[in-house]
Amino acid sequence: MLKIKVGIVGGTGYTGVELLRLLANHPHVSLEIITSRSEAGLAVSDLFPNLRNYLSIAFSVPDVKKLKNCDLVFFATPNGVAMKMVPELIEAGVKVIDLAADFRIKDLDVWSQWYGMEHACADYVEQAVYGLPEINREAIKQARLIANPGCYPTAVQLGFLPLIENQLINTSFLVADCKSAVSGAGRGANVGTLLCEAGESFKAYAVPGHRHLPEIKQGLADANNNEVDLTFVPHLTPMIRGIHATLYAKTRGSETDAADLQTLFEQRYADEPFVDVMPQGSHPETRTVKGANICRIAIHKPQNNDTIVVLSVIDNLVKGAAGQAVQNMNITFDLDETSGLNIVPLMP
Amino acid sequence: MLKIKVGIVGGTGYTGVELLRLLANHPHVSLEIITSRSEAGLAVSDLFPNLRNYLSIAFSVPDVKKLKNCDLVFFATPNGVAMKMVPELIEAGVKVIDLAADFRIKDLDVWSQWYGMEHACADYVEQAVYGLPEINREAIKQARLIANPGCYPTAVQLGFLPLIENQLINTSFLVADCKSAVSGAGRGANVGTLLCEAGESFKAYAVPGHRHLPEIKQGLADANNNEVDLTFVPHLTPMIRGIHATLYAKTRGSETDAADLQTLFEQRYADEPFVDVMPQGSHPETRTVKGANICRIAIHKPQNNDTIVVLSVIDNLVKGAAGQAVQNMNITFDLDETSGLNIVPLMP
Amino acid sequence: MLKIKVGIVGGTGYTGVELLRLLANHPHVSLEIITSRSEAGLAVSDLFPNLRNYLSIAFSVPDVKKLKNCDLVFFATPNGVAMKMVPELIEAGVKVIDLAADFRIKDLDVWSQWYGMEHACADYVEQAVYGLPEINREAIKQARLIANPGCYPTAVQLGFLPLIENQLINTSFLVADCKSAVSGAGRGANVGTLLCEAGESFKAYAVPGHRHLPEIKQGLADANNNEVDLTFVPHLTPMIRGIHATLYAKTRGSETDAADLQTLFEQRYADEPFVDVMPQGSHPETRTVKGANICRIAIHKPQNNDTIVVLSVIDNLVKGAAGQAVQNMNITFDLDETSGLNIVPLMP
Amino acid sequence: MLKIKVGIVGGTGYTGVELLRLLANHPHVSLEIITSRSEAGLAVSDLFPNLRNYLSIAFSVPDVKKLKNCDLVFFATPNGVAMKMVPELIEAGVKVIDLAADFRIKDLDVWSQWYGMEHACADYVEQAVYGLPEINREAIKQARLIANPGCYPTAVQLGFLPLIENQLINTSFLVADCKSAVSGAGRGANVGTLLCEAGESFKAYAVPGHRHLPEIKQGLADANNNEVDLTFVPHLTPMIRGIHATLYAKTRGSETDAADLQTLFEQRYADEPFVDVMPQGSHPETRTVKGANICRIAIHKPQNNDTIVVLSVIDNLVKGAAGQAVQNMNITFDLDETSGLNIVPLMP
Repeated sequence: MLKIKVGIVGGTGYTGVELLRLLANHPHVSLEIITSRSEAGLAVSDLFPNLRNYLSIAFSVPDVKKLKNCDLVFFATPNGVAMKMVPELIEAGVKVIDLAADFRIKDLDVWSQWYGMEHACADYVEQAVYGLPEINREAIKQARLIANPGCYPTAVQLGFLPLIENQLINTSFLVADCKSAVSGAGRGANVGTLLCEAGESFKAYAVPGHRHLPEIKQGLADANNNEVDLTFVPHLTPMIRGIHATLYAKTRGSETDAADLQTLFEQRYADEPFVDVMPQGSHPETRTVKGANICRIAIHKPQNNDTIVVLSVIDNLVKGAAGQAVQNMNITFDLDETSGLNIVPLMP
Repeated sequence: MLKIKVGIVGGTGYTGVELLRLLANHPHVSLEIITSRSEAGLAVSDLFPNLRNYLSIAFSVPDVKKLKNCDLVFFATPNGVAMKMVPELIEAGVKVIDLAADFRIKDLDVWSQWYGMEHACADYVEQAVYGLPEINREAIKQARLIANPGCYPTAVQLGFLPLIENQLINTSFLVADCKSAVSGAGRGANVGTLLCEAGESFKAYAVPGHRHLPEIKQGLADANNNEVDLTFVPHLTPMIRGIHATLYAKTRGSETDAADLQTLFEQRYADEPFVDVMPQGSHPETRTVKGANICRIAIHKPQNNDTIVVLSVIDNLVKGAAGQAVQNMNITFDLDETSGLNIVPLMP
Repeated sequence: MLKIKVGIVGGTGYTGVELLRLLANHPHVSLEIITSRSEAGLAVSDLFPNLRNYLSIAFSVPDVKKLKNCDLVFFATPNGVAMKMVPELIEAGVKVIDLAADFRIKDLDVWSQWYGMEHACADYVEQAVYGLPEINREAIKQARLIANPGCYPTAVQLGFLPLIENQLINTSFLVADCKSAVSGAGRGANVGTLLCEAGESFKAYAVPGHRHLPEIKQGLADANNNEVDLTFVPHLTPMIRGIHATLYAKTRGSETDAADLQTLFEQRYADEPFVDVMPQGSHPETRTVKGANICRIAIHKPQNNDTIVVLSVIDNLVKGAAGQAVQNMNITFDLDETSGLNIVPLMP
Repeated sequence: MLKIKVGIVGGTGYTGVELLRLLANHPHVSLEIITSRSEAGLAVSDLFPNLRNYLSIAFSVPDVKKLKNCDLVFFATPNGVAMKMVPELIEAGVKVIDLAADFRIKDLDVWSQWYGMEHACADYVEQAVYGLPEINREAIKQARLIANPGCYPTAVQLGFLPLIENQLINTSFLVADCKSAVSGAGRGANVGTLLCEAGESFKAYAVPGHRHLPEIKQGLADANNNEVDLTFVPHLTPMIRGIHATLYAKTRGSETDAADLQTLFEQRYADEPFVDVMPQGSHPETRTVKGANICRIAIHKPQNNDTIVVLSVIDNLVKGAAGQAVQNMNITFDLDETSGLNIVPLMP
């Protein structure tokens, strides 16, 4: 069986180990390289013992020459790293999927404002395809460079899109109240994400402004053919995996009832292998997608008033990161889109 | 020192054990009776070993005659129980604080619709005082019957009130996205609140309608002198204690900036012993009020748009239930309002 | 591809849903029947939404006639259920794997003493094979009736066996201090396993005697050709999945050092696909086996004294229950032993 | 009322904030100084918002001159800090309670071996009193320098002492299998104690040797008038507070039954305000001591064999650290021993 030669740059974070978990069992992947400056020489299964007997590769120092021998390179690096290496890889014919934010925002001024640096390869931003398959599948098939969406943007966009595409809501007062598990904050040593700080507690953060705000607004504006007015408040939830987005919007007219909305969502996602529209009246739990590349959505119209509430859940590390990256890989290499992703969520 | 003779009806739930914790150390309380049909005869400290050496009382079968010897009776019972016993106690001169919902809603049709039963003592509903001291302190002082507020309504009302009282927001599109710890669901044996079901997961529930909705709307409408349009979505959070309310409202004009809002809240709550307006830009964590009768609030105006975001946190069992009940007791018996409530939150 | 026709009796507990997760993706299984009296008619994916799109079967009332059409029936029922149905199935040529305790204990008096009932089919106990593949693989191949081991017994026996088989320890003072996640207590509605009772706390339970004690002693005595003296203390740990067994034993002589022990364990389990002897000095974490059919073991000889400490971890629902059952199925149907079990543990 | 002038050196860790919580409400304490080099100038309530409105003091740079004006200085610093400042303070007549390990071990060679440094004031080690009131109350009354015990040593010694003092057990094979909450690892930024690393998992650590081993052995040897042979294995438990010690020992003769042991423990601790011997057959839960200065103990003799199992639980931050320090302060300043410590544990 033909195997895609895959490299990973920066594999010591949670996105990295999740990519490794998914790729270890992927039937069409041969993992050639995984780089980490700090852990070079260490077997990945020494850092991540869940991979013992599944992966025998060791971390190595990043080396563009070796990466050029890959068919595909994933970047699971901090923001600002990929943009420095991507041009050389792309020019060498290597496909790139960046799990960080370097290529997500088309407006470079906006990007610089939120990420606090100049962009190193502006021209590549333009050709990068935003890797949300439910919108961009055809473009992804042809893409050389894929900007894998952020976790919040995935959950929020999939929840709002059918409403916006059909002009059913007033886009001047959208609210996305989002709750993320702690793994979204990464594997870095930080006081704020210690078990004794983040456990048994709940808080909002970054209410004045979070980097995923411009990404979400860009995606919704594209669907709307117009700017949208969105208030986005992320919260830290005392659990390891999962995002729950609770979305609020006012209907434009009153004629659309809950059953219509249900049908609308079901039709919009009928052919999507990884979006599950739950039965009317459902309350999706984040644990029902744990470990799997699934977004589950439910639609409500409480008290039959003019406010629509959409509930959208994903595993932030899978459909919100590594799983979606593998889905994008499958699409761009013309594999079965679900290849390597047939994982039943772990419950309980 | 004069001691108030206190009885508790229904003390085996989380609200009950929390009342016991607070009363065990209250300098002006003598706990005379605690009733439980199912646990009659059992020492409370056998059911709740945290109370060993603090309380030597045992559960007894409810007996109105004995309860009449109390100065005050707390009802920590399921909805619909207190209303059957309250008239006899009130007529006997006993003060009553009901921690359930029997006397919270003034409109009896609304009450019946949400609680699914006829009210047993409609005339007492009228005289009952809604026990939110930050609004009703003077009435509480004179009250014979106090309806202790629900947990969500406490967090939500304290967050919205300054905005509504000052007509700063458009009350036709209020959103209260609330997150509660699991103890809010009580100590009953339920699959849904098992550690393996509610742990490591997050979900919304009761989106079509929750019993606290009419209670919140009644309180906000009173402050507004007019109905308000509120969407209220409660969520279940994998932790034991705490409520986080994230409140969204549109400003009526654009002239009010974040600093003004900060001042407004600080002035509104300047004399309140149990409302803490955090510094501008804060993100209150539920753990900072764990075990204590405190509501901490922060006000944001993200991106300086026309949406105000208020963050309001309480311990659902304390300021959201037993602590507020003790606060009401202190007020109505003319004690220092903080008596027995000087508890530093437990952190971490 | 040939498919084994499988039935499951009693599939609404955690062992049941875990079996469903594993069988849903098993390449050689066709799930024909899953029974539940209480949930008959309900789609399994309505009760367990993680299975949406993976299983379309519904629960049905138990019916021996239909079960007889299966090649294999798993019992994921409370103790005492399987023994009433097993004879008829076995006589009809159906193979049976019982995940409960009905066939684990050979001494029927001991069984009755611990399980509080008479055994309904004593003669079948004798022919039942104890399904710990690391000891009984050859017998499992021929078995018609397999008694799937308990969760604690799996972790404890795999940790002690190499020491006992080689007569390295004094078997008159063995200690197994075991810590189990809460899912080991099942999915029943119980106050004791509520998140607010079992969360953020740790306790021992059943110290006077736990049903897994005779099972463990039977297995160790078999290896020892003699009774062993074991103190077994289980503890409840605030997490969803995982067992950690900490085993203590005194060496018989002082000549065996840690390196020898390491070699001994590595050789004993060299050909075992699901036992992972960690490098010397390791401290296995339960999360490194989450969702997977693996037992990881580390051996220590602290301070080079005469006490050996073995650390043994499993996922109680997988290698401690459903995964081991599938492993046994694979062996008895002559499939690749790892078929359907190539699951990388979920970490974090 | 007379107030003790108290200083705290190093107040930014969990032991520090816990001391602050307890001292904030202590009727006989005036907190004069709290030092932290890294946080100098910051209000303590900005770092620890649970203290808002309870403490208005700010962190300051350590300054021995100012500390000399205190009656008592607590050291809540890393090991090796106190020993450099203690002599000057003691000579100035200031009493010192060190919550770190600098003065716990009498044998300086042993201390150096485990703590990896030379001791800076060896002569003070001799005069230091080991602050376990249940053994050393009289000496504590007179002490100028108190070595506050470690968390594990407190739980283990209180559990073993009655057995050893009465020569009831064979001290050549003691096992202390201990489980600690994550706060025991401190508030430092470490990958290993992130919620996503330490949550939903359980592991042993430091099996080859932990610094509390020599401390425990010293205490038990004192009671035994002879060395003891102890195997001590600490484990990390996914919760914030609590230690559960499970202790195993063989009886010397068989004549002592469980009832005798129960009586023995009850008599031993009859006058101890902070040791609670639970009724026979109990299984103490760590949550029953959350936030309080209590050690709860239960004694078992499983299957009436010759192994005694003692269960001992504390809150590691209270009876295992800050609470015991306050208890020691109360004793040495001749206050009511329970002053400031009448806190009902928080449950749930």
